[in-house]
Amino acid sequence: MFGSILKLYYSYFSSNKETYVLLYRVLGYCPSNLGIYKQAFLHNSVAQVKEGIPTKLNNERLEYLGDAILDAIIAEMLFKKFPFQGEGFLTEMRSKSVSRKKLAQIANDMGLQNLLMFDQAISNNPTALRTMGGNALEALIGAIYLDKGYEFTHQFIRKKILGVHLDFDELKDITENFKSLLNQYAQKEKKELEYKILNTEPESKIKIYIIGVHYDGNEISKARAKSKKVAEQLASEKACQVLNLL
Amino acid sequence: MFGSILKLYYSYFSSNKETYVLLYRVLGYCPSNLGIYKQAFLHNSVAQVKEGIPTKLNNERLEYLGDAILDAIIAEMLFKKFPFQGEGFLTEMRSKSVSRKKLAQIANDMGLQNLLMFDQAISNNPTALRTMGGNALEALIGAIYLDKGYEFTHQFIRKKILGVHLDFDELKDITENFKSLLNQYAQKEKKELEYKILNTEPESKIKIYIIGVHYDGNEISKARAKSKKVAEQLASEKACQVLNLL
Repeated sequence: MFGSILKLYYSYFSSNKETYVLLYRVLGYCPSNLGIYKQAFLHNSVAQVKEGIPTKLNNERLEYLGDAILDAIIAEMLFKKFPFQGEGFLTEMRSKSVSRKKLAQIANDMGLQNLLMFDQAISNNPTALRTMGGNALEALIGAIYLDKGYEFTHQFIRKKILGVHLDFDELKDITENFKSLLNQYAQKEKKELEYKILNTEPESKIKIYIIGVHYDGNEISKARAKSKKVAEQLASEKACQVLNLL
Repeated sequence: MFGSILKLYYSYFSSNKETYVLLYRVLGYCPSNLGIYKQAFLHNSVAQVKEGIPTKLNNERLEYLGDAILDAIIAEMLFKKFPFQGEGFLTEMRSKSVSRKKLAQIANDMGLQNLLMFDQAISNNPTALRTMGGNALEALIGAIYLDKGYEFTHQFIRKKILGVHLDFDELKDITENFKSLLNQYAQKEKKELEYKILNTEPESKIKIYIIGVHYDGNEISKARAKSKKVAEQLASEKACQVLNLL
């Protein structure tokens, strides 16, 4: 604790003062290796010149690493939180937890935008602006992993992200509620709603279900999963998107 | 070491003798929690009955977990082995390292088929037979992770898989050689071969290249990547598949 304060005190008088303070606010600790954390916020639109030579230093490699580490940690957390759920449910929950949209929102809630370095010309590019925060969050996780190791990164995600910016129970409710949302809408609009099994792919005792959502007589979405329930949920979600209910 | 021998000695007289011996050969250590390792080899075609009640105990949840852990460990290994390569290369190398085909081959080389439990009826299903080994390997990694933790699993992959059943340099050569393989074939067949930039998606300073392979005047494949080189490699690989060169 005292070490951290000392580091913060010294860093306050360094040329990296502002970055240190912002990082400390996000991380809750003083990084041992500041360089790697700074790199996590370096968007590839910033042309880097090192000793007169252009370099490709940006956060893309860290993003690749952090993406994989985050996936593994979230996979394990869901595995342990839902001991009676099948892999279809777990896969779906994970993809929702680390979706582009969700990561961008978490990055924003954490205030990462204040640390990002990017070329201002990119302001005209809505896609780049939308994905930059989430990518920086993944890169930050890559940096924490390289600086502090797996267990520490696990703890960081558990303490600083889960429960604060990411709620598995809430995501579960949303997932399970697509069907009822769709149902309510169909009732309100007085339209017929039907789930049809379009196909099964029998693999001995394993079946793959393809379920189509028929709304007012038209197939508006379909999805594929190992269980009927999961396929229905996925198809309902797509249908909600088609009907602009989300 | 002595503890391990003692455990092996005791387990030799238990009802799980055969499983223990086979597992010891694969793992190089005696598992603390045999149950979880046994579950890793339980294909979902085996109907489980526990105290008269059918249960869904199989290796699918462990496969989900192990898949994510393996991805993270391979991602990190590639990140460290190739410090000057971009994320496009790293992503491509990882997907080759953990492809269905590669995992099935590693599982086979490790002798996992001797541990697999599945319903014999599945023998008529070539897809299930092809994927079963690779899935069990992922589930085994999930089991090792739950039993021994991340660092141990990392070590297991480094010592027992990498360099023994998986060679990054060899995979890199294969990746880089699709272009020359394609070139040689076109020369032998006296056909024209051309790479065409079909499109670039300019995003401020980031470009996405879409490259098409034209063979004998026809576009036979195309691929999309952030660098021209990676897009050409990916398109070449697809072209090699189309021409049955692999």
